Amino acid sequence: MRAYDIILKKRDGKELDTEEINFMISGFVRGNIPDYQISAFLMAVFFKGMTPEEMADLTMAMVHSGETVDLSEIPGIKVDKHSSGGVGDKTSLVLGPLVAAAGVTVAKMSGRGLGHTGGTLDKLESIPGFKISLTRREFIDQVKNIQIAIVGQTGNLVPADKKLYALRDVTATVDSIPLIASSIMSKKIAGGADAIVLDVKTGSGAFMKNLESSVELAQVMVEIGNIVGKKTVALISNMDQPLGYCVGNALEIKEVIEALKGKGPDDLMELCLTLGSYMLLLADKAKTLYEARRKLAQVLKTGEALNKFKQMIKFQGGNPEVVSNPELMPEAPFIGGFNSYKKGYIHFIDAQKIGICAMKLGAGRLKVEDKIDYSVGFELLKKVGDAVDINEPLIKIHARSSEDAKQAERDLAEAIVIKEEPVDKPILLYGTVTEEGYEAF
Amino acid sequence: MRAYDIILKKRDGKELDTEEINFMISGFVRGNIPDYQISAFLMAVFFKGMTPEEMADLTMAMVHSGETVDLSEIPGIKVDKHSSGGVGDKTSLVLGPLVAAAGVTVAKMSGRGLGHTGGTLDKLESIPGFKISLTRREFIDQVKNIQIAIVGQTGNLVPADKKLYALRDVTATVDSIPLIASSIMSKKIAGGADAIVLDVKTGSGAFMKNLESSVELAQVMVEIGNIVGKKTVALISNMDQPLGYCVGNALEIKEVIEALKGKGPDDLMELCLTLGSYMLLLADKAKTLYEARRKLAQVLKTGEALNKFKQMIKFQGGNPEVVSNPELMPEAPFIGGFNSYKKGYIHFIDAQKIGICAMKLGAGRLKVEDKIDYSVGFELLKKVGDAVDINEPLIKIHARSSEDAKQAERDLAEAIVIKEEPVDKPILLYGTVTEEGYEAF
Repeated sequence: MRAYDIILKKRDGKELDTEEINFMISGFVRGNIPDYQISAFLMAVFFKGMTPEEMADLTMAMVHSGETVDLSEIPGIKVDKHSSGGVGDKTSLVLGPLVAAAGVTVAKMSGRGLGHTGGTLDKLESIPGFKISLTRREFIDQVKNIQIAIVGQTGNLVPADKKLYALRDVTATVDSIPLIASSIMSKKIAGGADAIVLDVKTGSGAFMKNLESSVELAQVMVEIGNIVGKKTVALISNMDQPLGYCVGNALEIKEVIEALKGKGPDDLMELCLTLGSYMLLLADKAKTLYEARRKLAQVLKTGEALNKFKQMIKFQGGNPEVVSNPELMPEAPFIGGFNSYKKGYIHFIDAQKIGICAMKLGAGRLKVEDKIDYSVGFELLKKVGDAVDINEPLIKIHARSSEDAKQAERDLAEAIVIKEEPVDKPILLYGTVTEEGYEAF
Repeated sequence: MRAYDIILKKRDGKELDTEEINFMISGFVRGNIPDYQISAFLMAVFFKGMTPEEMADLTMAMVHSGETVDLSEIPGIKVDKHSSGGVGDKTSLVLGPLVAAAGVTVAKMSGRGLGHTGGTLDKLESIPGFKISLTRREFIDQVKNIQIAIVGQTGNLVPADKKLYALRDVTATVDSIPLIASSIMSKKIAGGADAIVLDVKTGSGAFMKNLESSVELAQVMVEIGNIVGKKTVALISNMDQPLGYCVGNALEIKEVIEALKGKGPDDLMELCLTLGSYMLLLADKAKTLYEARRKLAQVLKTGEALNKFKQMIKFQGGNPEVVSNPELMPEAPFIGGFNSYKKGYIHFIDAQKIGICAMKLGAGRLKVEDKIDYSVGFELLKKVGDAVDINEPLIKIHARSSEDAKQAERDLAEAIVIKEEPVDKPILLYGTVTEEGYEAF
């Protein structure tokens, strides 16, 4: 078998078999196939696509490129949730305790933020003392004990993905659906998931900028899941404006606490309840979506969901008192504000620009090695569709200094569009993709 | 400027400007742009193509990647001829002396053979003592003196082409018309040509297997030539069967000598007279094709063409006596034969297979470092369209041993198709491509 022939076959639009895909991926990871052949191959995949079977093969070849997490000693169906990332997206932090309180096993590995999007691990680390590094043993024991743990990646999972991504990033082959889908699915499967719920974001703040491509990506991932024997469903949700009101690490943890009391922002609550219902269904903890949603409402009401969060913080070395006293978390020394420049209605809040502004304040990283300031960020006071008066405060700015706040104020002006005519609140959830296909809500 | 953005732009089907193409090529040659970005770029070019302006820019960027040959001290318009290569193609060796005798300046750099095609330099070296390495000074002085020199490449011409070809060869991006066209044109231009006559071969023995793609390649090269200010015309000729009767180095030189006496095989004579007429036209040595052809017929008849060949051999250190005594060239120790296996008509002689058989006999190279045996090869006794009797000799095999000849006999069986029904002689010349477009003969 030769890499050349496999590139040629893909270039000419023919379907590759399992052996050929394994040959490319394992050869690449072992260094037997040079980068220049892989990048030509990736560009050919960009143009010619892949069949679902090829994508399933690619996914499993990536899974087998490194270690995998064995969760078999933890009883029950392990359901993992993946989000394609967004601004102000603290869904994992609400969902984890919420579904764990309703009986689902949550053994979750999360990531850090980069660029305009935040990361679950960074948000957790804004809780004083919180440890995201557990040994594999500690991780599994904690899940067995309290049914939830959210940690950083342990072990060398899917090295092929890291190596491929680094190459895609410099060869203009990132935005290829087969490559995106197999990357996401391989990481979930290597992490030990039995079933997967996907939150595919669409809109200006998301990787997929339009509904059509988001649905396509979702369909492809659901197909891969089904071919490799991992039940998968996907939700398509809006990421035109930030999710919830808070953007920034400690600020988002405060919003998570509110949400776990059942008092979070409407969009965040709705998204978590919908995704959570699917997780209960896939974990066999409910027979219908209706029953699932009722159970989730129940654990919010009884305080079990919030308590689960507190328990997790305690087990992972953090100060559980933050749940009752959020001011124990880092607080920014300077509070500024961005006020409306006219009377009217908010038509657009550019999630990506808000994310970049937050990063510039110190809430995120431009480069992997950048340090984060957990205290800084934004609290939106209004969202799309809201009426505003001239000079009415729109965003509270948590900054390290008045200069930073002033700079953010200038930057934010470009992120918000106000017009005189009223506008509807945007759709949050577009629909779901299951084995049966796409169904709009 | 970043290589990434240029890859992305080409991937998305947008036209690159001169600066962007220069950046890619000079960055690649200098080692500032890694192979993996160039190979992704080449694959994007494969899929998205290039405009004539982009191809002209690419051609000139390649020309400027290395040294160029300055022929300005040689008076007159320097017309170079390029053939896309074939089996038994000794055209350059006939054409050079032919047009030089008719007044055209021939300062030609040629190449060696690889795979199933032979090379002009190898054929010349079968003449005892012939030197293909001249210094730049000797080369120019010889051309000034006797109006012809055929040598190996002097200096580091078009290093970008060598580097790009090596990468294309392992990334399935060889058969891309913009890349083929700019490679050919850049080498001719760097070699000092003022005007170019192209012989684009089509058929089973050629790189382009069908007429449509051959015409496309020819059109693209003519366009590039016109954009960069080098008058270019192209002839489309058949390479379904070998050209002439002889395949193998010394054997082909014998055929060249016959052709320069005006007694060569019909197809070889016709091709050389047609290409030569265009060369006279481009060199301003004739006003019409008719006048050009008449001049060429004249120098064949008077012996001036053959004499020019003899003169070149003498100037380049070879034994000019071979012209009158071809047996002074290496002769194979064993002569075998391939006879017809049935009565009928020859429908097909697979040029590529004949070329490979000749290579196996020792007439060509599989790898660059292989040694050539100048004496071996084939003499076809029949060509497509000819009637044959059962057991009638079809090919004379010149071999190193009876075992080699036996092996060749077995291999040749697959290269020749004989059927009972008669068949027309194949078309040799399909048409020409000039600035005005393709015109079929």
